[in-house]
Amino acid sequence: MERRRPPQTEEGWYVLHDFRSIDWDAWRDAPERRRSRAIDEGIEYLSGAERVDDAEAGDSATFAVLGHKADLLVLHLRPTLAEIDALERRFEQTALAEFTERADSYLSVTEVSGYMSEEFFDEESEVEDTGMKRYIESRLKPEIPDSEFVSFYPMDKRRGPEDNWYDLPFDERAEHLSSHGDIGRDYAGRVTQIISGSIGLDDFEWGVTLFADDPTDVKELLYEMRFDPSSSRFAEFGRFLSARRFPPEQLGAFLAG
Amino acid sequence: MERRRPPQTEEGWYVLHDFRSIDWDAWRDAPERRRSRAIDEGIEYLSGAERVDDAEAGDSATFAVLGHKADLLVLHLRPTLAEIDALERRFEQTALAEFTERADSYLSVTEVSGYMSEEFFDEESEVEDTGMKRYIESRLKPEIPDSEFVSFYPMDKRRGPEDNWYDLPFDERAEHLSSHGDIGRDYAGRVTQIISGSIGLDDFEWGVTLFADDPTDVKELLYEMRFDPSSSRFAEFGRFLSARRFPPEQLGAFLAG
Amino acid sequence: MERRRPPQTEEGWYVLHDFRSIDWDAWRDAPERRRSRAIDEGIEYLSGAERVDDAEAGDSATFAVLGHKADLLVLHLRPTLAEIDALERRFEQTALAEFTERADSYLSVTEVSGYMSEEFFDEESEVEDTGMKRYIESRLKPEIPDSEFVSFYPMDKRRGPEDNWYDLPFDERAEHLSSHGDIGRDYAGRVTQIISGSIGLDDFEWGVTLFADDPTDVKELLYEMRFDPSSSRFAEFGRFLSARRFPPEQLGAFLAG
Amino acid sequence: MERRRPPQTEEGWYVLHDFRSIDWDAWRDAPERRRSRAIDEGIEYLSGAERVDDAEAGDSATFAVLGHKADLLVLHLRPTLAEIDALERRFEQTALAEFTERADSYLSVTEVSGYMSEEFFDEESEVEDTGMKRYIESRLKPEIPDSEFVSFYPMDKRRGPEDNWYDLPFDERAEHLSSHGDIGRDYAGRVTQIISGSIGLDDFEWGVTLFADDPTDVKELLYEMRFDPSSSRFAEFGRFLSARRFPPEQLGAFLAG
Amino acid sequence: MERRRPPQTEEGWYVLHDFRSIDWDAWRDAPERRRSRAIDEGIEYLSGAERVDDAEAGDSATFAVLGHKADLLVLHLRPTLAEIDALERRFEQTALAEFTERADSYLSVTEVSGYMSEEFFDEESEVEDTGMKRYIESRLKPEIPDSEFVSFYPMDKRRGPEDNWYDLPFDERAEHLSSHGDIGRDYAGRVTQIISGSIGLDDFEWGVTLFADDPTDVKELLYEMRFDPSSSRFAEFGRFLSARRFPPEQLGAFLAG
Repeated sequence: MERRRPPQTEEGWYVLHDFRSIDWDAWRDAPERRRSRAIDEGIEYLSGAERVDDAEAGDSATFAVLGHKADLLVLHLRPTLAEIDALERRFEQTALAEFTERADSYLSVTEVSGYMSEEFFDEESEVEDTGMKRYIESRLKPEIPDSEFVSFYPMDKRRGPEDNWYDLPFDERAEHLSSHGDIGRDYAGRVTQIISGSIGLDDFEWGVTLFADDPTDVKELLYEMRFDPSSSRFAEFGRFLSARRFPPEQLGAFLAG
Repeated sequence: MERRRPPQTEEGWYVLHDFRSIDWDAWRDAPERRRSRAIDEGIEYLSGAERVDDAEAGDSATFAVLGHKADLLVLHLRPTLAEIDALERRFEQTALAEFTERADSYLSVTEVSGYMSEEFFDEESEVEDTGMKRYIESRLKPEIPDSEFVSFYPMDKRRGPEDNWYDLPFDERAEHLSSHGDIGRDYAGRVTQIISGSIGLDDFEWGVTLFADDPTDVKELLYEMRFDPSSSRFAEFGRFLSARRFPPEQLGAFLAG
Repeated sequence: MERRRPPQTEEGWYVLHDFRSIDWDAWRDAPERRRSRAIDEGIEYLSGAERVDDAEAGDSATFAVLGHKADLLVLHLRPTLAEIDALERRFEQTALAEFTERADSYLSVTEVSGYMSEEFFDEESEVEDTGMKRYIESRLKPEIPDSEFVSFYPMDKRRGPEDNWYDLPFDERAEHLSSHGDIGRDYAGRVTQIISGSIGLDDFEWGVTLFADDPTDVKELLYEMRFDPSSSRFAEFGRFLSARRFPPEQLGAFLAG
Repeated sequence: MERRRPPQTEEGWYVLHDFRSIDWDAWRDAPERRRSRAIDEGIEYLSGAERVDDAEAGDSATFAVLGHKADLLVLHLRPTLAEIDALERRFEQTALAEFTERADSYLSVTEVSGYMSEEFFDEESEVEDTGMKRYIESRLKPEIPDSEFVSFYPMDKRRGPEDNWYDLPFDERAEHLSSHGDIGRDYAGRVTQIISGSIGLDDFEWGVTLFADDPTDVKELLYEMRFDPSSSRFAEFGRFLSARRFPPEQLGAFLAG
Repeated sequence: MERRRPPQTEEGWYVLHDFRSIDWDAWRDAPERRRSRAIDEGIEYLSGAERVDDAEAGDSATFAVLGHKADLLVLHLRPTLAEIDALERRFEQTALAEFTERADSYLSVTEVSGYMSEEFFDEESEVEDTGMKRYIESRLKPEIPDSEFVSFYPMDKRRGPEDNWYDLPFDERAEHLSSHGDIGRDYAGRVTQIISGSIGLDDFEWGVTLFADDPTDVKELLYEMRFDPSSSRFAEFGRFLSARRFPPEQLGAFLAG
């Protein structure tokens, strides 16, 4: 078995999915004064992060998580890992943090790969003026869409003795991903995705974050993709977390139930 | 390997299985006044949810869970995820929540698929007046049956190199499911099911909730199904949780042991 | 692949393995008065359960668990799940419960299957007067043996692409189980078993509870069985818990170390 | 597939690996008086166990565990499970226990099998006077060696569709183990092992405890064994825990960091 | 299947990856005096460890961990396990430890193997004066590089029925590793690695620690390696942890968020 040709990749912004659980017992027991301070400092932190006060570029968003795995998701995209690190630890200094515990997290970095556009990597100068370049920029430095619903999951490509993604020839992988992307394109306008790589950064190889106003669009997209060989034979999925976006100013309402 | 044809699906109500553990130490230690308040607010929340005071439609039910995995299951079905989200967080504001911790949960949405009735999807207008349409409605907007026993488990269809559900031709899958359904029909009147999809919503692909007055009917149904290729070759099961329904008004008796 | 013929089954009593950890720190710190009350109420609960004060029939027993997984095992067999549910929650109302936490549990129901005796199922009337009927009754409504040692583990039958129990013809399965049973019979008088089914009730398909005065008899029986295809090719084992029986009256001595 | 011939086994002493974590926060906060008492009672318990004050025979030893999985390992060998049970619970009554939590444990029993010496099992009388008998005794009733380093791990033999230990003919298994033992013999004087069986007692089939003064001798022995088919094709390993022996009298120094 | 020839190995320094979580709630609540003491004692411990005050040789470094798995990584390399053990427990005596809990850890030992240089092992005297000897020393007694980013993960070589590393002939394994090393060499100056063996010491067979100023260099290196058969067919990865180095004197700033 020979070594296969890896795709070239270019990385953009670091991505932290920061999942927190609310300590509802402490919240109910807290005096009004402490609650107010927690809400004020929480709004300040979250809206500051969404305004990207802490960095030259990036984006952040706040979500209410469904189910027992977490209550709050703060999603950060920033150009440097130092900024991600600072945001993560700065949260702990807010009065809101007193009422939260870390439930989960995922660290990754936006990427585009040579499967998508070999030209971009091979002859960068020639794509300078094309829409491709703008498209690639939008994937490396994505704006978090305004959608109500978000679904996050990490995933690996399978390396089994029979279905081994990393042992496929480059062209076969590129074809799989192109076919996979075709499905996604059918959902354009309804589902937006941020694909970020996490090899060496976190436990899986990629993180997938899907945004939609209607959660069933995400469900149908992923169901359809599951019948595509790129998923049916080669994908290994981790946990799935679902959440609903809310503006930081509604933190008080969120905590009021 | 080619891309297989996915079934069409239609989604109905969102489903939250909300499992809670009772903090029995805190409960025993609590003064009568706090207990009464917890019972009162608990009954108010649970019976309000069962009456669906919070939404235009839906259903809710309350169960005592067997074993160490949880003590209480509150099952909610609602037309929107926003309503599910609100119910989940509103629980935390009750005095009952002080005595509970989240033990588990599962988020899904009721679905019917084109395996069952391609006509429904292909020529919707023509099934307008048929019983099929009423049947489909009853699956998308199910009433929680009054049975004493409930069994819940999440499941996936297998994607192994040899037994790969997602690589079967559509007709083969449809045949498997039809044959699988035949077994279920033998238990009509004894076991009722709510099948809900959770791709992109939670860790497995489906949630299965079975209702029966006699738990051995559920056991025998599932045992029989396990010999059907659709289960024996293609099903991957998650955890199983068993519970017994009780009316919210009996919350005090439930907590009294 | 065709659907295989399932065995008929008959179910008897529900079985709860209720594993608890002692909070030894709280126990050491507790004043004598609270300890006495815990012991008194614990003995009352445990000996009441062993006398089956709460139901028309059934059996219960108390064990000290070896190792870190739990400290106490209370094993309950009862005709209805309602009685199991009541026993489980009534424990929480005792002063003993203040010093325990739930560590594990397993819910199942005693069963006999058509592999053992098709006649029993096919022509019930004709076995009315035979020893077979009495034998079957003893498996559906077993008395917990007086042995000192107990070993509990849950298990599944394998559904792999190559070794798939549920894809074997009925006769082959019956033969496997008959051969498997032969090994057990060699240990008659030394090892007694309660086999209970848990499909739809708990995470595995069966619970196995083995009783012996000499733990090495259990070890040798299971080792011998592991070389039988029914185990070597088709069994998937869960966790194993070992415990030693003690009479409820010795609860004080148990807690004294 | 036929049933394979199991080896005969003889069991000796029960073995408990009792892993505890120190609650360092409580330790640092405790007044000198409580610390002294914890150290005194700890030394009394540990040195009493090492002197085997509690039984007719056996051995015990105390170790400092490396890494986050535990801090303290107390290893007990005793002729009866009742003695193991008593030692385990007696620990909880010491003032040292106030500063510890159970982190892990493993229950097993020393064994020799017919792979090693069929003569021993088949014609016991004839080996009465030989060195084999003394060797077997030393494995059933082992003295814990004085080595500085210990490595413990549980393991199973594989039962996969292709590599199935339990489906190998007896002679092939015996040959594998004999070849495996040859590697061990090359390390005689540097690495000492206690092999104990745990089928029916704990989650894996065997516990392996390796003693050496130089940890790299254990590493090199196990690495070499991994290339032997008996490991490379047939072993499934659980967790590994590493620890360093210290005499009970140094408990104070151990706790002082 | 025959026994394969293992590589010779030589071991150098023991390696402890000591991951700790900060108890941010306790930190926020602590009076200034306790915080100052924690910072002072923390800096003293960490900078003493980095200066290797406690041993004749070795190295230590301090990192801020990204994500929820831990907050602090202290990496220690020391000639003896006794020194590692002492460092680990001495941390618990600092006032900083009051604000931390152990989140994870990994124990291993630096190694070079005969795959790399059979001459080194076979004819040690002849390589005395060569650069190879110096290179090997640098791997056995590595200096922790000054890079900003570190990625740690444990790994095994696969022992599946089809892809079984331990069943490959020596030369094939050596060739795989040589080819694998070639990829690494392309990243010389950008990514530095410490490979340490952990068979018999911890749960996996090796620990890999990669250092780089730019995290995307680690990501690209590992992605490229994943297409090499040595990874694609034979590697099983554990968890991945990412961290950023900081000098002990900045502990106060780290804790201030």
